Amino acid sequence: MNVNFAERAHNHNWKLDPIVRSLLDTDFYKLLMLQFIWKNFPKTEVTSEVVNRTVSIRLAERIDAGALREQMEHVRGLRFRRSEMVWLAGNTFYGVRSIFEPAFLDWLENDFRLSEYQITEHEGQLTLRFQGLWTEVTMWEVYVLSMVSEMKTRWALSHLSELELDVLYARAKTRLWDKIEQLREVPDLNISDFGTRRRHSFLWQEYCVQALRVSLNQNGTQRFAGTSNTALAYKHDLEAIGTNAHELPMALAAMADRDAALRQSQYRVLELWQQSYGGALLVMLPDTFGTTQFLAGAPEWVADWTGQRVDSKDPVVAGDEYIAWLMKRGRDPRTKRLIASDALDVDDIVRLHANFRGRIRFSAGWGTLLTNDFRGCHPRGEDTFEPISLVCKLMTVNGRPAFKLSDNSRKSMGPADEVERYRRVFGSAAVDGALVLV
Amino acid sequence: MNVNFAERAHNHNWKLDPIVRSLLDTDFYKLLMLQFIWKNFPKTEVTSEVVNRTVSIRLAERIDAGALREQMEHVRGLRFRRSEMVWLAGNTFYGVRSIFEPAFLDWLENDFRLSEYQITEHEGQLTLRFQGLWTEVTMWEVYVLSMVSEMKTRWALSHLSELELDVLYARAKTRLWDKIEQLREVPDLNISDFGTRRRHSFLWQEYCVQALRVSLNQNGTQRFAGTSNTALAYKHDLEAIGTNAHELPMALAAMADRDAALRQSQYRVLELWQQSYGGALLVMLPDTFGTTQFLAGAPEWVADWTGQRVDSKDPVVAGDEYIAWLMKRGRDPRTKRLIASDALDVDDIVRLHANFRGRIRFSAGWGTLLTNDFRGCHPRGEDTFEPISLVCKLMTVNGRPAFKLSDNSRKSMGPADEVERYRRVFGSAAVDGALVLV
Repeated sequence: MNVNFAERAHNHNWKLDPIVRSLLDTDFYKLLMLQFIWKNFPKTEVTSEVVNRTVSIRLAERIDAGALREQMEHVRGLRFRRSEMVWLAGNTFYGVRSIFEPAFLDWLENDFRLSEYQITEHEGQLTLRFQGLWTEVTMWEVYVLSMVSEMKTRWALSHLSELELDVLYARAKTRLWDKIEQLREVPDLNISDFGTRRRHSFLWQEYCVQALRVSLNQNGTQRFAGTSNTALAYKHDLEAIGTNAHELPMALAAMADRDAALRQSQYRVLELWQQSYGGALLVMLPDTFGTTQFLAGAPEWVADWTGQRVDSKDPVVAGDEYIAWLMKRGRDPRTKRLIASDALDVDDIVRLHANFRGRIRFSAGWGTLLTNDFRGCHPRGEDTFEPISLVCKLMTVNGRPAFKLSDNSRKSMGPADEVERYRRVFGSAAVDGALVLV
Repeated sequence: MNVNFAERAHNHNWKLDPIVRSLLDTDFYKLLMLQFIWKNFPKTEVTSEVVNRTVSIRLAERIDAGALREQMEHVRGLRFRRSEMVWLAGNTFYGVRSIFEPAFLDWLENDFRLSEYQITEHEGQLTLRFQGLWTEVTMWEVYVLSMVSEMKTRWALSHLSELELDVLYARAKTRLWDKIEQLREVPDLNISDFGTRRRHSFLWQEYCVQALRVSLNQNGTQRFAGTSNTALAYKHDLEAIGTNAHELPMALAAMADRDAALRQSQYRVLELWQQSYGGALLVMLPDTFGTTQFLAGAPEWVADWTGQRVDSKDPVVAGDEYIAWLMKRGRDPRTKRLIASDALDVDDIVRLHANFRGRIRFSAGWGTLLTNDFRGCHPRGEDTFEPISLVCKLMTVNGRPAFKLSDNSRKSMGPADEVERYRRVFGSAAVDGALVLV
């Protein structure tokens, strides 16, 4: 009686269930960085590569290269929609209007393209390589990471019965809600969703974001600050959160000829950045070549920046270091922001919030363990929903190798002789070995 | 684009969302007892009453008497459908064909009616009274209990947001699945769903039953024996489980004139029962007036019955008592069945199964804590989904008071002077005080 014949026929003739449904389905900082690159490095050529750090997972056995290509071609066929462009142009980001220049928006709407790419299989692993103008390559990162992550999810889902699927999501929702209840107890929290790239799926990320919004922003409180995902910020009237990533200092370092220029490149990025952006967007990421040397050698004006993001160092150590550095330079840390974003879960967030409360404005960028925590949720106890540590890294810039050292030596990547040169220039005293979970 | 206009309009013009959708939506034993009553006591007049034992819950504040009346009138307007009649006539119950006589089925299809009733409100409580022929009154019990239970659920649901509803069911499903995982570890279990009368809702009971069927009956094992709910047995090709209830000995006792006849009435029920039914349906319920006196005074042929159901006594004590009694009478307990059905949860089931394994064929009738365990699932920590102890009891039979003593003195109900007479006839040595949860 109630059969929806059209829907049924449509479902049976499904061609492609797209993972990335809009070019806005990316981290907001990619758009900020894209404008930065478009403005400062429009002719720069780069290559980048997707690497699966979790080598025990043979990705090629779970993801069909042909199906991946279809998804990627679908994204290449997307354009920014008229209403999306209007939103980018007219919206207020971090309290600032017109953050994107008209000329950039015009280029974005009419001339933006994604680069060519290659997919290869080797010993059960998939490798994706991108080559072209930096402006064409850079946006692939988040699209392709969330795509591979969701294709892995779909593979795992395809092995569950209808009831098992129901159990899986019931357990994941129960887990999410238990976390939310824990966070609701903490006053003055500041949390953002940073979980786009390693999410279980787009729809699950959307569910998590809506759950946080509804339950943490009640009665005038605003504990959920927003999401890094621009499509979700647009769709659900949330703040789009994010500033910049390691990609920028890595590229500028790769382009630097001599050792002095190499050393200076990490500050040169900041100079260029503040020519485009101000206020809350002046958040630095000092760990690309080690935080301690970065702070020690930083020009005086760096202390005027709004805050820093901690990505690879123990946030307690990095925060204390930053606070001491600010005080030594006569700045009040209580006006500055400290953003932690590396493999956080609820317990870390609550602990760090308590640790920094009243000392510095602490925010948590909650990533994979928000949008992809299915640990122990599989109805038959398998681990097929565990997120993998998939990263997309800049490999070369104008033909020269690019890499980072970071505060965590396990995250260092690049050819050995160049790593040596970088270590000589930047030192490696501050590198510690915090465990990399995701 | 995909709006189902017809569905949307239909949903907006909803008149009644029926709770009882079929006359089969009752415990199977009600149908067995109905045939028994139709055959042996077609002219007997009774009254019965719904009592809320959980007096702290003011039911009238949650359930509108008018809405309850609409639901009850809906059930009174139902008839057994043609296909349901065919199933009752042609199906095999407990391995026996034609358990229902053609004349009974003819009467059921054409002449069965539900009695008149009264709904009254007093101090925040609802009282429901039924009056008429026993054949017209008896079937109200399960319809009205599950109806009140689900109306209470709907009231609680109406105070939750869409997200909170989602969380509620995610938690309840997670709970259910955790229980199932525990049961899957135990070999040779025999579990049935006995949870119709105090279920969260019809659809939730159906979900629970399907989950048990799919997950406990795999690879040739059959740990889930079936459901007491006839509609679900019919719909999902499951065994309909159940035999008889206290209603029968209570009524026969009420009709007994002298003390000797009163004492004999508890065995007279069994005599009449075995004139209609045999084999697996010969399961007695000896606790109506105390198990110990029942067994002590039972005629020899009672030991030939297939088993007993334990409803108010600690099943370990009752089982040991039954086993000793059988052995004393030269019967092998390992061929007999012991069914526990009072407020069981998973831990009890596993413990009792282990206790009786190899000694007697143990089965668990899993009731309210299967179909209505939402403890701790409310997203704001309220207890509005807790089941209440609602019972429907026979009050009078041909104008004389009816009641039971049972093994649990807290379950005894009836006028004080008559209780005294019953205590004189049956004694009260065996009455213990096990906690009544539901």
